Amino acid sequence: MSDNRPKIRHALDVKRADDFAKWYQAVISAADLAEESGVRGCMVIKPWGYGIWERIQRLMDDRIKSAGVQNTYFPIFIPLANFEREAAHVEGFAKEMAVVTHHRLIADGEGGLIPDPEAKLEEPLVVRPTSETIIGDAMARWVQSWRDLPLKLNQWSNVVRWEMRTRMFLRTSEFLWQEGHTAHASREDALAETHRALEMYRACAEEDLALPVIAGEKPENERFPGADETWSIEAMMQDGKALQAGTSHYLGTNFAKAANIRYQDHEGTAQFCHTTSWGTSTRLVGGIIMTHGDDDGLCVPPRIAPHQVVILPMLRDKPEDKDLIAYCEELKASLGAQTGLGEPVRVLLDLKPGKASAKRWDWVRKGAPLICEVGPRDMENGQVALIRRDELWNAENGKLATRFIQRAQFIDDVPKLLEDVQASLFERARERRDANITRGLGTWDEVVEFFASNGKYPGWVEVQWSKPTGTALDEVVEQLKSQKLTFRNVPKDSDPADGNCIFTGEPAVERILVARAY
Amino acid sequence: MSDNRPKIRHALDVKRADDFAKWYQAVISAADLAEESGVRGCMVIKPWGYGIWERIQRLMDDRIKSAGVQNTYFPIFIPLANFEREAAHVEGFAKEMAVVTHHRLIADGEGGLIPDPEAKLEEPLVVRPTSETIIGDAMARWVQSWRDLPLKLNQWSNVVRWEMRTRMFLRTSEFLWQEGHTAHASREDALAETHRALEMYRACAEEDLALPVIAGEKPENERFPGADETWSIEAMMQDGKALQAGTSHYLGTNFAKAANIRYQDHEGTAQFCHTTSWGTSTRLVGGIIMTHGDDDGLCVPPRIAPHQVVILPMLRDKPEDKDLIAYCEELKASLGAQTGLGEPVRVLLDLKPGKASAKRWDWVRKGAPLICEVGPRDMENGQVALIRRDELWNAENGKLATRFIQRAQFIDDVPKLLEDVQASLFERARERRDANITRGLGTWDEVVEFFASNGKYPGWVEVQWSKPTGTALDEVVEQLKSQKLTFRNVPKDSDPADGNCIFTGEPAVERILVARAY
Repeated sequence: MSDNRPKIRHALDVKRADDFAKWYQAVISAADLAEESGVRGCMVIKPWGYGIWERIQRLMDDRIKSAGVQNTYFPIFIPLANFEREAAHVEGFAKEMAVVTHHRLIADGEGGLIPDPEAKLEEPLVVRPTSETIIGDAMARWVQSWRDLPLKLNQWSNVVRWEMRTRMFLRTSEFLWQEGHTAHASREDALAETHRALEMYRACAEEDLALPVIAGEKPENERFPGADETWSIEAMMQDGKALQAGTSHYLGTNFAKAANIRYQDHEGTAQFCHTTSWGTSTRLVGGIIMTHGDDDGLCVPPRIAPHQVVILPMLRDKPEDKDLIAYCEELKASLGAQTGLGEPVRVLLDLKPGKASAKRWDWVRKGAPLICEVGPRDMENGQVALIRRDELWNAENGKLATRFIQRAQFIDDVPKLLEDVQASLFERARERRDANITRGLGTWDEVVEFFASNGKYPGWVEVQWSKPTGTALDEVVEQLKSQKLTFRNVPKDSDPADGNCIFTGEPAVERILVARAY
Repeated sequence: MSDNRPKIRHALDVKRADDFAKWYQAVISAADLAEESGVRGCMVIKPWGYGIWERIQRLMDDRIKSAGVQNTYFPIFIPLANFEREAAHVEGFAKEMAVVTHHRLIADGEGGLIPDPEAKLEEPLVVRPTSETIIGDAMARWVQSWRDLPLKLNQWSNVVRWEMRTRMFLRTSEFLWQEGHTAHASREDALAETHRALEMYRACAEEDLALPVIAGEKPENERFPGADETWSIEAMMQDGKALQAGTSHYLGTNFAKAANIRYQDHEGTAQFCHTTSWGTSTRLVGGIIMTHGDDDGLCVPPRIAPHQVVILPMLRDKPEDKDLIAYCEELKASLGAQTGLGEPVRVLLDLKPGKASAKRWDWVRKGAPLICEVGPRDMENGQVALIRRDELWNAENGKLATRFIQRAQFIDDVPKLLEDVQASLFERARERRDANITRGLGTWDEVVEFFASNGKYPGWVEVQWSKPTGTALDEVVEQLKSQKLTFRNVPKDSDPADGNCIFTGEPAVERILVARAY
């Protein structure tokens, strides 16, 4: 960056380049997305953060339903016995979970309350960390014959995994998610569903959230406990770390055998079902922050912005305010009658008391895609002062890049403007991602050297490997761990291997992404 | 009923008139709404039941948002200390709740799992039975001055109240609901919000769910723990019992004082906020069953039906099926392009394997508003065979009242048909309700006699009373309890009192509804 560029005074007091972790927390606070709840490991999702999640839910749910998946609701409590059935699942999950042991409180005689010793449960209940086992029980009841297959279910719910080190949206003890669970007659059908869900996640991430992702298969050590195959979409954050943004699992007949999910085939023979499960969570909001946030706060892609246009009248607590508000109401109605990105444009007229400039900066930090200020003079001139959140600054003069547009023109243009912001956020993120994947490192030493010398945010490397299993794989994973590195996935569309494994020296069989990760 | 009417063979093997409780369970099972989960007190909500809940959510959520209320999400776990703060709230709630005491499981050495004694929580956590106390904590942080008021929040979530005797949808240990929580500068504003929410519930119940309700104030003994006023909407089920279908509470400054929710007024003086809370739950689905169900299963009001029209092609596993399916696809598209009750018509083309007649009866039991059968001959004649679920039988001949309509006519008529079904379900329920409220009983003995002699399903009575409080009220409540009766509410629009209290003999001050209740 050249030194004679004018200095911009950004809205946050911590910059991405200086302290990414601190910047992340600053955006969450400045954009009013969430806050610590005071309850260990749990956060409060505030209206703007929850509004973004609601938009993600709505768009994802449409995709889920259009694939013929039906929504359901299963109990939050799971009996211990369910976890004891599937050996690998116990290993992977039966650890940090919230356990309910009592069903009543009584006074302790000193003004406090304690669990009533008389009301101890015979069998403790686990607060669901995921629902394969309890949904498996239902599938065993619901599936009789091939006519009942495929059975495709989904639920939107909260889940709890007790976490020692938490970070808002990325790792909290309680989080919100959707979990899809399907049962099929054959391995082929179940694998097709695994890939359908994966592709749905890719499309939702890229088209709705403007998050470029790489879809691929996780190596054995990163598989879901009890799965035969785990696939993921991986997104690159602005600090070059990877974020696993969604997973889709082919569970083989493992859970079907544990829960006895069987069907009669066309010949009347009982067969085990092949099952899948797939999930995404409020973690996606963390991915949006670390992909589209900047030193002025968040920038929300229009498709998932609760409000796409915020109108801010410059009120002065004077009688003239009435006309200005009426003018803005009309503007709001005209904008709202337009269709942008396939839906009616979502417009907020912000009449909350407060200074106009303070409110403008609030919306910049929250990342409303278009912020539209209207003062008395604008009203006279039939214009609006428009701020496009993704092009906030005029680099020439270091000032806000406010544009004055005729009101009618703005109404005509708003669909195109929203499309542009959506596309530009995606393109920007994709270019950054592509520029930060390094290929062609031929040895482990080169990888170590790369991560040691390539600055603060080195990005990802794609390396060739021989796909060792068992203890050989464990050794490789330890090797990665020593550099704080992890395997991400084997991209679906990566080139075939043509060299040697950087870990074992044996002929490589595929290419795999290696990165630091959240 | 005259004896020479033809006998109808209904789809359920238990009738409302014979055993209402058993019939209720039979509908839930026959309409595939929900089932026992195997986890104590918790149910599984199956796709058709959950689809109805999703429709209720969507319509209610639109109403909530249009009132300027913002959705949020608060932790499922509430520290014990929160319950200890508000005395009346402890009394009312700190009883049957699920208590989390451990955060890890370990192997017991015999193939099982047990809570890890090393992972005992210092302070047990309660699974939320309602969120006043934890949302109150947040309000105390978020509200600084009058500019921050009103603060209007809502959340859609699961809650847990440990129940000893459960009944699906009506009383389960875990249920789904929305809870609104608002803070205001004055008593007047908070009361206005209490009534806005109540009116919203009335409108949603009557217009969307076709449930006629009576809105009114609960007497002191039925108040929410910690509330100054509790208002409800009450619906009459077909067995004459009352179902409380939604409540709205004015909490005064009680919770504000417990959580220290204060604001600076225009003069800079710190004042306590006045707060409200209001909720509705999956219980509404139980109300729909007991209002719109009949001896053939459920009948879902079109506004909340996941599918409003179900097309059933009469497939024969022959090559001609292809044409029939194409014809039905086209019909589906034409119907779906119509607008009914303000939304695109929701159409399912059911291609699941199975006999056409079996599938027809499945949809009758589930209560799809319009069931439309198309066979090869219908296709040739350009017609459909239509079953209107709310007018299922031809009373003349005891057969299904199937109508043959030209395809084009059906497409034109579908919006009107859906409106008719919606209106007719409401009218039918309202007439039944109004015919079963008895007024003019002047003494307690008359009330006892009325409920003893007026058949199996006596309905409600509206009586005059002097509104005693404290122990005098306790005695009245005991008197009611001896007859298995309860107070419902004091209807907002009831006539003024003009007689004596049937309990105390003193001059009455208002009229109150008395009924058996769920």
